[in-house]
Amino acid sequence: MFMHNRKLQYTVRVAEGNPQLATLMLEQFGGPQGELAAAMRYFTQALAEDDAGRKDLLFDIATEELSHLEIIGSIITMLNKGAKGELAEGMQDMAEMKNLTGNSTSQTQAILYGNGPALVNSSGVPWSAAYIDSIGEPAADLRSNIAAEARAKMVYERLINLTTDPGVKDALTFLMTREVAHQKSFEKALYAITPNFPTGKLPGDPAYTDLYFDMSQGDEDDAQGPWNSGDLWERVEDRDAQMAVDGGDGTASVVLTARQQAALDAFAERTASSPDADPLTGAELGAGPGAGAVNIAH
Amino acid sequence: MFMHNRKLQYTVRVAEGNPQLATLMLEQFGGPQGELAAAMRYFTQALAEDDAGRKDLLFDIATEELSHLEIIGSIITMLNKGAKGELAEGMQDMAEMKNLTGNSTSQTQAILYGNGPALVNSSGVPWSAAYIDSIGEPAADLRSNIAAEARAKMVYERLINLTTDPGVKDALTFLMTREVAHQKSFEKALYAITPNFPTGKLPGDPAYTDLYFDMSQGDEDDAQGPWNSGDLWERVEDRDAQMAVDGGDGTASVVLTARQQAALDAFAERTASSPDADPLTGAELGAGPGAGAVNIAH
Amino acid sequence: MFMHNRKLQYTVRVAEGNPQLATLMLEQFGGPQGELAAAMRYFTQALAEDDAGRKDLLFDIATEELSHLEIIGSIITMLNKGAKGELAEGMQDMAEMKNLTGNSTSQTQAILYGNGPALVNSSGVPWSAAYIDSIGEPAADLRSNIAAEARAKMVYERLINLTTDPGVKDALTFLMTREVAHQKSFEKALYAITPNFPTGKLPGDPAYTDLYFDMSQGDEDDAQGPWNSGDLWERVEDRDAQMAVDGGDGTASVVLTARQQAALDAFAERTASSPDADPLTGAELGAGPGAGAVNIAH
Amino acid sequence: MFMHNRKLQYTVRVAEGNPQLATLMLEQFGGPQGELAAAMRYFTQALAEDDAGRKDLLFDIATEELSHLEIIGSIITMLNKGAKGELAEGMQDMAEMKNLTGNSTSQTQAILYGNGPALVNSSGVPWSAAYIDSIGEPAADLRSNIAAEARAKMVYERLINLTTDPGVKDALTFLMTREVAHQKSFEKALYAITPNFPTGKLPGDPAYTDLYFDMSQGDEDDAQGPWNSGDLWERVEDRDAQMAVDGGDGTASVVLTARQQAALDAFAERTASSPDADPLTGAELGAGPGAGAVNIAH
Amino acid sequence: MFMHNRKLQYTVRVAEGNPQLATLMLEQFGGPQGELAAAMRYFTQALAEDDAGRKDLLFDIATEELSHLEIIGSIITMLNKGAKGELAEGMQDMAEMKNLTGNSTSQTQAILYGNGPALVNSSGVPWSAAYIDSIGEPAADLRSNIAAEARAKMVYERLINLTTDPGVKDALTFLMTREVAHQKSFEKALYAITPNFPTGKLPGDPAYTDLYFDMSQGDEDDAQGPWNSGDLWERVEDRDAQMAVDGGDGTASVVLTARQQAALDAFAERTASSPDADPLTGAELGAGPGAGAVNIAH
Amino acid sequence: MFMHNRKLQYTVRVAEGNPQLATLMLEQFGGPQGELAAAMRYFTQALAEDDAGRKDLLFDIATEELSHLEIIGSIITMLNKGAKGELAEGMQDMAEMKNLTGNSTSQTQAILYGNGPALVNSSGVPWSAAYIDSIGEPAADLRSNIAAEARAKMVYERLINLTTDPGVKDALTFLMTREVAHQKSFEKALYAITPNFPTGKLPGDPAYTDLYFDMSQGDEDDAQGPWNSGDLWERVEDRDAQMAVDGGDGTASVVLTARQQAALDAFAERTASSPDADPLTGAELGAGPGAGAVNIAH
Repeated sequence: MFMHNRKLQYTVRVAEGNPQLATLMLEQFGGPQGELAAAMRYFTQALAEDDAGRKDLLFDIATEELSHLEIIGSIITMLNKGAKGELAEGMQDMAEMKNLTGNSTSQTQAILYGNGPALVNSSGVPWSAAYIDSIGEPAADLRSNIAAEARAKMVYERLINLTTDPGVKDALTFLMTREVAHQKSFEKALYAITPNFPTGKLPGDPAYTDLYFDMSQGDEDDAQGPWNSGDLWERVEDRDAQMAVDGGDGTASVVLTARQQAALDAFAERTASSPDADPLTGAELGAGPGAGAVNIAH
Repeated sequence: MFMHNRKLQYTVRVAEGNPQLATLMLEQFGGPQGELAAAMRYFTQALAEDDAGRKDLLFDIATEELSHLEIIGSIITMLNKGAKGELAEGMQDMAEMKNLTGNSTSQTQAILYGNGPALVNSSGVPWSAAYIDSIGEPAADLRSNIAAEARAKMVYERLINLTTDPGVKDALTFLMTREVAHQKSFEKALYAITPNFPTGKLPGDPAYTDLYFDMSQGDEDDAQGPWNSGDLWERVEDRDAQMAVDGGDGTASVVLTARQQAALDAFAERTASSPDADPLTGAELGAGPGAGAVNIAH
Repeated sequence: MFMHNRKLQYTVRVAEGNPQLATLMLEQFGGPQGELAAAMRYFTQALAEDDAGRKDLLFDIATEELSHLEIIGSIITMLNKGAKGELAEGMQDMAEMKNLTGNSTSQTQAILYGNGPALVNSSGVPWSAAYIDSIGEPAADLRSNIAAEARAKMVYERLINLTTDPGVKDALTFLMTREVAHQKSFEKALYAITPNFPTGKLPGDPAYTDLYFDMSQGDEDDAQGPWNSGDLWERVEDRDAQMAVDGGDGTASVVLTARQQAALDAFAERTASSPDADPLTGAELGAGPGAGAVNIAH
Repeated sequence: MFMHNRKLQYTVRVAEGNPQLATLMLEQFGGPQGELAAAMRYFTQALAEDDAGRKDLLFDIATEELSHLEIIGSIITMLNKGAKGELAEGMQDMAEMKNLTGNSTSQTQAILYGNGPALVNSSGVPWSAAYIDSIGEPAADLRSNIAAEARAKMVYERLINLTTDPGVKDALTFLMTREVAHQKSFEKALYAITPNFPTGKLPGDPAYTDLYFDMSQGDEDDAQGPWNSGDLWERVEDRDAQMAVDGGDGTASVVLTARQQAALDAFAERTASSPDADPLTGAELGAGPGAGAVNIAH
Repeated sequence: MFMHNRKLQYTVRVAEGNPQLATLMLEQFGGPQGELAAAMRYFTQALAEDDAGRKDLLFDIATEELSHLEIIGSIITMLNKGAKGELAEGMQDMAEMKNLTGNSTSQTQAILYGNGPALVNSSGVPWSAAYIDSIGEPAADLRSNIAAEARAKMVYERLINLTTDPGVKDALTFLMTREVAHQKSFEKALYAITPNFPTGKLPGDPAYTDLYFDMSQGDEDDAQGPWNSGDLWERVEDRDAQMAVDGGDGTASVVLTARQQAALDAFAERTASSPDADPLTGAELGAGPGAGAVNIAH
Repeated sequence: MFMHNRKLQYTVRVAEGNPQLATLMLEQFGGPQGELAAAMRYFTQALAEDDAGRKDLLFDIATEELSHLEIIGSIITMLNKGAKGELAEGMQDMAEMKNLTGNSTSQTQAILYGNGPALVNSSGVPWSAAYIDSIGEPAADLRSNIAAEARAKMVYERLINLTTDPGVKDALTFLMTREVAHQKSFEKALYAITPNFPTGKLPGDPAYTDLYFDMSQGDEDDAQGPWNSGDLWERVEDRDAQMAVDGGDGTASVVLTARQQAALDAFAERTASSPDADPLTGAELGAGPGAGAVNIAH
C-alpha cells in the first residue's frame, strides 16, 4: 500500500517564475526517461517478482521514483505558478503572452492545462506506457533498469547545464545523483544472479554465436576492436558468405495446399504486370501537352 | 548507402500456412523488442557517432538487423500466403473465416493488410519510434543496446517455445543466437570506454550517492543483499530521515512578483472551497428521494 | 513524499490461474478508466492546487488510487502466475499454448511481457497520458473527476458481472465501492465552490446562452424534455435561422496584403480546375478497353 | 444523414494573417477538448442511445459541434491563408520564414500541411479517439459530457484572453457560450434520469462507501471540509487501519497446480539472487582503476 | 454548416446480434481506411481549398462520408444491441460471456464501451488523425484521395467476403460502390488541373530524373518492365555508380567553429573506445565461472 | 539481405551548424511523408509481393529510400554537430542555450536525444507505423505509392524554399528529384496491370456507381465540372432523394431474441429520461443564489 506525506523528499526553492524553463523540466516529468516511466517500470516489475530481495528493491526504488516525480512536478508547478494566476484571471498583457507562447510546448501548457503540470515531454507528446520495456525475465529487466538509470542521469545532467536558477539546479543535482545510486543497486542485483548471460534458458546455436558479420564496408579498412575481432570472433567479410549462412538457397518458402495454390494463381493472373507494355500513365496525362513521352518529368 | 540482395541472410522454410502463428511472429517484426526497433536504434546511433570503431560497429549491426527484419517478415509472409490468396479471390468458406478471425490481430491482418506483413505488434499496435531509447551519450546508449539485445533474445526464446514448425523454429534460433552475439559486441564496446561509470561528465553529489532509502517496509524485516546493504551503502530506514533529506522544510516555493501574487490571490478567492459548508450536491440530487442525506451512496 | 508498505489495502485471494480473465482485468490497470489514470489525474491536480482543502483531498485520493493500482496489478499477477512459470521454463505443451494464445491480448502478455502485468488495456493498447483530461480550473476538474469516478465504477461493475472467481469478485467489489465514495467527495468539493457555474471567469454572451438549435430533424416531431424546451430555452428549428446566427453572411474572410493576394492568385492560377474539360483520367486508363467512356466503373 | 450548407453557423471575420495565432486555435480543432472530440463524443453516444429524447439531444449537439469544428477550422484557415500562398509559390523571404518557423507547431503546419488546417493540437500532436471517454451508460456519459463542456468552455476562455483580433474574439465568444448552453442541456438530461447515483445497477458495499482514507498526512492537521468529514464520512487516519481493510493479511495469493508450482520453483532457482554475495559488477568495471570498491560512483 | 436528418442514407437491416462480426466492422468505423478518416480528410481539405469547384466537391463527399460513418456505426450498434442489454443488466450467463470475450477487441468493446460503437479499429487501436495524409497541394491531395478511395473499396470488398448476414452485406455493397464513385470524381478533378505532374512548382533536377537505381540484385537477372527500363530510363546497375552520384566523396561534412571543434574533441576524448584493449565485460562476469574467456556465450 | 557502404548516395556539405534548421529537416526523417515511411512502405509491400517485376521494383526503391534516410539523417547530424559537442561538454553559455531552446522541437532534440537524429517529425511527434497505408492489393498500393511520392516531393520543395545553406539545398534537390522518378516508376507499374480500375475483384452495384450526391448546398448554384456533372454522372440534388436511397425507411434495425429484448427493456426503464420533469440540476446548484431559475447561465 502507498502512503503520502506532505513533505517532499527534497526541498524545492525556485527563484522566479519561468514557464520556458518549465517546458524543459517536463522532459523528466512526462518524458520517456522521466520519473513516471521509472516509477512504473519498477512498480510493475515489483508486482511480478517472486524473489524476496529483488521484490523489495523494486518497491523501494519505485516508491522513491514516485517521490521524485513529485519533486520534478513541484519544480514545474513553481516555475508556472505566476503565469497560472495571470492566465486564469485574464491579467496578462499581450507582451507577456507573446513571451508565454513563443514556444509551442509552453503555449499548450497554458491553454490546455492552465499551467498545471501535465504528463507530456518537452515537445508536448503525452507520456506512453510504450516507454516501459520490462519483459518479465529478471536478468533482462535488470539490464534494462541499469540502462534506464544511465539515460535518466544524462538527461538530468543536460538539464543542470541549461539551468541558472540555483534552487532548481540544486534539486536537479539531487535527482541526478539518485539515478547513479539506483544504477549501482541494479548492477549488484544483476550480478547476484549467477549465471546471468545469456539471459534466459535456451542456449544460442554455437554455429552462429561467435560470427561477426562485417555488413558495412567502404574503401578503407574497418576500425577493429574487441567488439569485432580477436579470439572471441570469427569475422565474415565476404558478401557471399554473409548470405544464406545456413547453406540453403536464401529464399523463403511455404508448402501450400492445392486450393491455396489455385487461389494464389488466380490472384497472380488478375494482378499480373505486363513487362513488355509501355502503358500510357497518369503521369503522362498529368505532365501536359508540352511534355515529351520520353522525358515526362522535366 | 544501403544495397540489397535477393538472398536472405538465412533460408526460411515454412511447413504450412498458419495465420495464427503469424500474429505471434509480428511481435519481432513491428513490436517494441523487434527487428525494426533494433535496426533503427543502431542506425540512428551510427549516424551521430564520431568514434570510428563504434560507428562501424553500429552500422554493421544495424544492417544485419535490417536483414533480420527481412527474415522475420518473410516468415510472416509465408505463414499468411495461403490465406492471402483465398481472401483476395473470395475463396474462403465460412469455417475457415471463423478460424482466421478468431484472434483480433489476425482479423485485422486479413481485413486491413490483406495478410501482408504489417509493422504492428502481436496485439495489432503500430510500431512507434517511441520504442527507441537512444540519447546520444555512448556509455548510456551501449548499456541500452546491451539491454535491448537481452530482451530481444528472450522474446525469441518464448517464440521458439511456442512453435512446432521446424523451419520456423530453425530460423528463430538463428535470430535468437545473433542477439547473443550482438550483446557480446556491445559489452566489449562499452568496456572499451574508460571510465564509463557514472555515465556522462558531471559527478554525483557525494552526499547522496551511497544512501539507500528503504521506502517499502512491512511487518517483517527486508531481505538484504549487496544492492541495499554492506559497505557500499548507508541505509535510511527511518521515515522522517527519508523526507526533506536536504535539511530544509520539504516544501516547494517560488518568489512571485506582486502582480503575480495579486493574480493568484484573486484566483484563490474565486475558487475557494468553503470547508464549513455542507452543500447539496449532484450526488444527492441524483440519489433520488429514497436516499437519506447522510448515506447517499447506499 | 510517498511511502510503501508491503501489505495491500485489500487482500487478494485468487482461486486459480486464468490468463484470459487477466486480460479483462488489464482494463482497470492500463486502460483509460483504470487506476493509473485515476492516480495520475489526481496527483497532477494536487501538485497545482493551492486550496489547502482540495490539495489534501487530491493527494489522499491519488494515493489511494495508487494503492488500488497495486491491488488490480496483484490480481493480474496472480491470474498469470502459473502461466508465467510454465512459459519461462518451457514447460507448456501445445494444447495449453493454444489456450494461452487464443486471445491476442493474452498472447502479447505472454510473449512480450512474460505474463507480468503491463500497463496496457484489454486490447493491448499502451496507457497514454492523453487519457487524463485535467485543465487546471478547479470547477472544471472536479466535474471531470466526478465523471471519471462514475465511469470507473461502471467498468468495475461490468468486470464483476464477468467474473466467477469469488476472491477476484470480492476485491473488485471493494474497488468499485471506493469509486462511489470518491465521487461523493468530489461532489462535495465542487459544490463547496460558490458559484461554480459557468466554470471560469468570463460570462457567456446572453444572446446565445439559451438557444437550443434543433440540428437533427426527421419526419416525426422531436422528443422534447427539459434539455431542449421549456422556459429555459428558445428553440431554433428553422434551418435558415440556424445559419449565420450573428446576422452576417456566414462566410469566412481575412484581410490580405497585396503581396499575399498576389501569391494566392498565382497559386490559384497554377492549380485551377477546368470545369468545362472532360479530361481522360487514370480511372479510364485503368478500366481497360472493355469499359465505355460513360460508365467506366461498371 | 448529414447535410451541409455553405454558410457557416457564425460569420468569421479575421483582421489579418497570423500563423502563430493559428497554432493556438488548433487546440480547439484537433486538441483533446476541441470540437472534433465533442462532435465524435456525442455522435457515437447518439448511435448507441435508445432513449428517444437523449438520442435526439445527442444528434442535435453532435451536429452543432461539427458546425463549430467548421468555424474554428475556418478561423485557422483565414489566419494561415496569406502564409499558405507565399509558401506554395516560394515567395517568402527568409525574414518572414524565421517568423513562420519560430514556433515548432507553426513550422510543421507550414512544411507538412501547407498551412491547411490539420487535426493536431497546439503542440502538433495528432488528434486521437483516445480523447473520447464514452462508456455506454447514460448516467456516466452525461456526467462526462457535462465535464467536457466545462473544460471546453475554459479553453475558449483562455483563447479569448490571448486574442486581440476582434473578429476572432467575437467568434470564439460565440463558441464559448454554446459550451455553456450545452452543459445546461446535459445537466437537465442527467437529472431527468431518476435515480442516477450511483451510476449503474450494482450497489456499493456499505462497509466501504462512507470511509474516507486519510492517505496523505503531514506535521500539521489536514484541512477538513464536507468532502472528508462530517456525518457523511467515517475518517480513517491510522495507517494500520488503512491497510488490509478487509481484515485479511494484505497479501496476494493464488492456488497453483503442482505442475505450475514446479515450474515456478525452477524459475525461482534459475534466477535466484544471492543476498550474501558482493559480486563484482559492471559499475565497478566501468568506474575505472581510480575508483575504490566502496564508493564507486564518486 | 452541418445539418442532420434522422433517416440514414441507406437502410440497415441486421438479421441477428453478432458482437464478433461487429469487431470486423469497426475497421471501417475507426480504422485507418474507415469513414471517419475519409470524412475528415475531405473536410479539412475543403476548408483550405480556394478553387470553387474542388471546394464544393470536397464538402459534398466529406458530408457523404459522415453519412456513411453513421451507416457503419449503425451496423455495429445493431450487431451489439442484444449483448449491450444483457451486459448492462447483468443477465449474461458465463457461456455467453466466454463467447463475447473470445476476441480481445470484442471484450474491450463490452467492458470499456458497453457495446456502444467506439472509434477504434478491428484490433482496438484508437483512431488517430495521423491517418490523414493531406498536405495542402491539390495535385498531391487528389492523388492521395484517389488512393484512399481505392483502399477503402478493398476493405469493404474483404468485409463483404466475410459476411453472411444479407442486410449487412447489402449495406456494405452500397458503401463499397460509393468509394468507386468517389474515386471517379477525384480522378476527374485531378486531371482537370493542367499540368499536374510533377506536383508543385519546382522542377526536378534533370540529371537525376530518369535514373533507375538497381539497388536490389541477385544471382539472376532482374525482371524488367516499363517501370525500370526502356527509353524513359537510364539504368544504373553498377554498385560504385550508385554511390556518391553527385561525383563527390560520399561523406557528410559541416564547417565547425573552433569552439565547437574543441568541444567535440573533448567529447571524443572522453568517450574514446580503445581498440586494442580486450576488456573484461559484464557478459563475462555474467556468464559465470564455467564459461571460458573466448566463447562466453555458449 | 541488406548491405551497407560507408559512402552516402549523395555527398552532404553543410555550411554551418544550425539546430533550428535541423528541426525542419526532421520532417523528412521521422515525419509521415519522410524517408522511413517510404522505405518501410515499399519494403513491407516487397515482402508480400509475388509478381517478380513489382517485387524487384519495390525492393529497389525501398533500398534507395533507406539510403535517402541516411542522407537526410546525415544532414540533421551535421546541422547539430557543433551543438552536440557543446551540450555534452557543458560548454554553452546561456545566450546560446536560449537560442537552442527557442523552439520546442529543438529543445527536446538537445535534452532528450543529445542532438543525435531522432525519428520524430518537426513537432517532435515520434514516427508511427500508422503512417503506412499499404493494404496488400497491388492496384491500390501502387496508387498509394504514387500519392506518397507526390506528397514527399512537395515537402522537399517546401524545405528547399526554406533553406539558404547551399549544400543542404543541393542535397534536398537530389532527394526531391528522386521522388519524381519514383512516381514515374509506380505509374508505369500501375498501368502495366490491366484492368486496374475498380481495384479488386468485386464490381460496384450499378445502381449507385454513377450517382453524384450534392450534399453541400447554398444560396448560389454549385460550381460544376467533370467530377460532378456531364454524361458520367446522375446528379442527386433533392434532399429527400439523398436519404434512404435504397427505398427503405432509412432506419437501422436488428432482430433480437426475447431475452435480449427483455434485457433492453429493463435497461431502458432503468435509464429512462422523464421528458416532463424540470429537475433541479447541478448547474442550478452551481450557479449560486443570485442566478434565476430561467437563465442560469448568465
